[in-house]
Amino acid sequence: MKHIAKKSILNVKPYVPGKPIEEVKRKLGLQDVIKLASNENPYGPSPHVLAAISKAAHNLNRYPDGDCYYLRQALAQHLDIEPNQLIFGNGSDELIVMAVRAFVNEGDEVVMATPSFLVYDIASKIAGANIHAVPLKNFRYDLEGMKAAITDKTKMVFLGNPDNPAGTYLSEEDVRHFLKGLRNDILIFMDEAYFEYVEAEDYVNSIRLLRTHKNIFVTRTFSKMYGLAGLRIGYGIGGPSLCDVLNRIREPFNVNSLAQVGALACLEERAYYRTIAKKISTQRRYLYESLSSMELEYVESCTNFILIKVKAKASKVAQKLLEKGVIIRDMSFWGMDHYIRVTIGTEPENQKFIQVLEEVL
Amino acid sequence: MKHIAKKSILNVKPYVPGKPIEEVKRKLGLQDVIKLASNENPYGPSPHVLAAISKAAHNLNRYPDGDCYYLRQALAQHLDIEPNQLIFGNGSDELIVMAVRAFVNEGDEVVMATPSFLVYDIASKIAGANIHAVPLKNFRYDLEGMKAAITDKTKMVFLGNPDNPAGTYLSEEDVRHFLKGLRNDILIFMDEAYFEYVEAEDYVNSIRLLRTHKNIFVTRTFSKMYGLAGLRIGYGIGGPSLCDVLNRIREPFNVNSLAQVGALACLEERAYYRTIAKKISTQRRYLYESLSSMELEYVESCTNFILIKVKAKASKVAQKLLEKGVIIRDMSFWGMDHYIRVTIGTEPENQKFIQVLEEVL
Repeated sequence: MKHIAKKSILNVKPYVPGKPIEEVKRKLGLQDVIKLASNENPYGPSPHVLAAISKAAHNLNRYPDGDCYYLRQALAQHLDIEPNQLIFGNGSDELIVMAVRAFVNEGDEVVMATPSFLVYDIASKIAGANIHAVPLKNFRYDLEGMKAAITDKTKMVFLGNPDNPAGTYLSEEDVRHFLKGLRNDILIFMDEAYFEYVEAEDYVNSIRLLRTHKNIFVTRTFSKMYGLAGLRIGYGIGGPSLCDVLNRIREPFNVNSLAQVGALACLEERAYYRTIAKKISTQRRYLYESLSSMELEYVESCTNFILIKVKAKASKVAQKLLEKGVIIRDMSFWGMDHYIRVTIGTEPENQKFIQVLEEVL
Repeated sequence: MKHIAKKSILNVKPYVPGKPIEEVKRKLGLQDVIKLASNENPYGPSPHVLAAISKAAHNLNRYPDGDCYYLRQALAQHLDIEPNQLIFGNGSDELIVMAVRAFVNEGDEVVMATPSFLVYDIASKIAGANIHAVPLKNFRYDLEGMKAAITDKTKMVFLGNPDNPAGTYLSEEDVRHFLKGLRNDILIFMDEAYFEYVEAEDYVNSIRLLRTHKNIFVTRTFSKMYGLAGLRIGYGIGGPSLCDVLNRIREPFNVNSLAQVGALACLEERAYYRTIAKKISTQRRYLYESLSSMELEYVESCTNFILIKVKAKASKVAQKLLEKGVIIRDMSFWGMDHYIRVTIGTEPENQKFIQVLEEVL
């Protein structure tokens, strides 16, 4: 059927996710496997969240509330915005795809950084867009370069903030400077999947920017800090008109019932998640120190993952780590042949990773 | 932001789902509300399925298996097909949207029946397709008319079987006759969301047709008979080449973990679901008899819903039923001003519906 498919989709390299723990156990015959490959929260959601999910399961024969009423009300209040400024997705990656589908015509241009989150590239290619991918400079967005890449045909700009896989962030000043003088008919997609991990005081307040910039769309997720990656729920924040456009192409029941209930419960668990943020912060320092003592370079991260330069082929290192039951991400796919990306796990997980990495190198 | 959105999506009337029970209670201040509006299984999934879901919840911090490995193996065996002939969706409605996105270019033509499932129309309009909607004849697909509507530009044909909202089906002979002489570069989308309810012996065996027709794509769901509408999972069956094309635009984690676990458990519960099919069958007869004794016309259905001609404006009847706590579907939106569609519920639900309908009329 390839001959009758849209041409734009046949050139797309599909996204390669981190391997599931079960799969590695099954294929390599291992008992003990840890996964530091997909930037998941290793502690999981709180007991309160799990209880809310279990309680709601008896109602699964009913379609979800397509409007996410209760979650919408609570989140709007939490963020101090209007309920009609929100749209929910089957993970925030669905919102990336929806935004591209709604705004990008064949032949339009899309500006993004490289390396960056692969779904920006995949979704844009499927839409038949021409992509201007501007290389990172010293592992940070080259905003001058990205601004220079904008032409009359540019329809959309992706700002991953913090970005994946580098783990660096854009400040209030960075973003304001970038926006200055920019046409307001370009959609600025600010992907803040790692928002909850950022401690930097000069990190941009994107929701405040929405008041003056109707062309900004901010996405966040319950998959990372909130530990609900398996349930699939993310959200987008934008002006009512932008959300209305996206709602027209949203599938009516795109967010499942348990995800809605789980996300709502997460919002009631601030203390629990603050504790997790602290643990991750402590473990980040542990990893920095361990890597330094191994004389390995890494990129300082404001997220729950770290990009590390290994003194060997990343593909080989990744394979050897895998054989010892440690799943991390080989960055060769991104053209970074000597880099791996490692999620910050629990204390024992990080210790195991460091120990195995020492053996392997 | 409407001025920069794709033109094709601004003409789309969004899908209006059946109202959630919670919403009706909240807005009308009612305690006792039954929902017979969304063709859900009123009994819910089996205790075994619910237990499997609860057991898997501890793992929600991990991304789902994007490949749906275990479910894929089990379902392939169950259907006697190869694992690479399957693709899973966030409900089968996601697969409708994916198929249109993958194959339909702007200006292509899509043939469907009217009235039919609204998502066919919405997805095709968003893609910028020209739609040929062929009216039902006596509440059945007019396959001759649909075949006559096919032109050189036709890229896709939707066959809902059984169809919604009519509840009628296509036989083996109907479909074979339709396919005869048809170009093989037209995607034939056979939506079998209500497959498990069909008792007719001459119902088409679509999986057998796949062996000779690489351009057929069949979808089914765990939302209807299996009672997992809230979890969102459906699947498509086609040739490996067709599935490969669709996989390229699939979001990597489109099916949540609990949906995968729940669906797998459903496949182990054949006896439970056979019992439900029997109950629905019995209740269908009860509704037929009650409607006949009220001298109301209805369409004989092979599904868990019935299209009923009320002797008044459907919108008014629906509103009055709603005020008495019975949610059904007003068919005015489909241009059927005197029809309502009612899901077959439990025995007490159906009795309440009949009682309230008598009061209202």
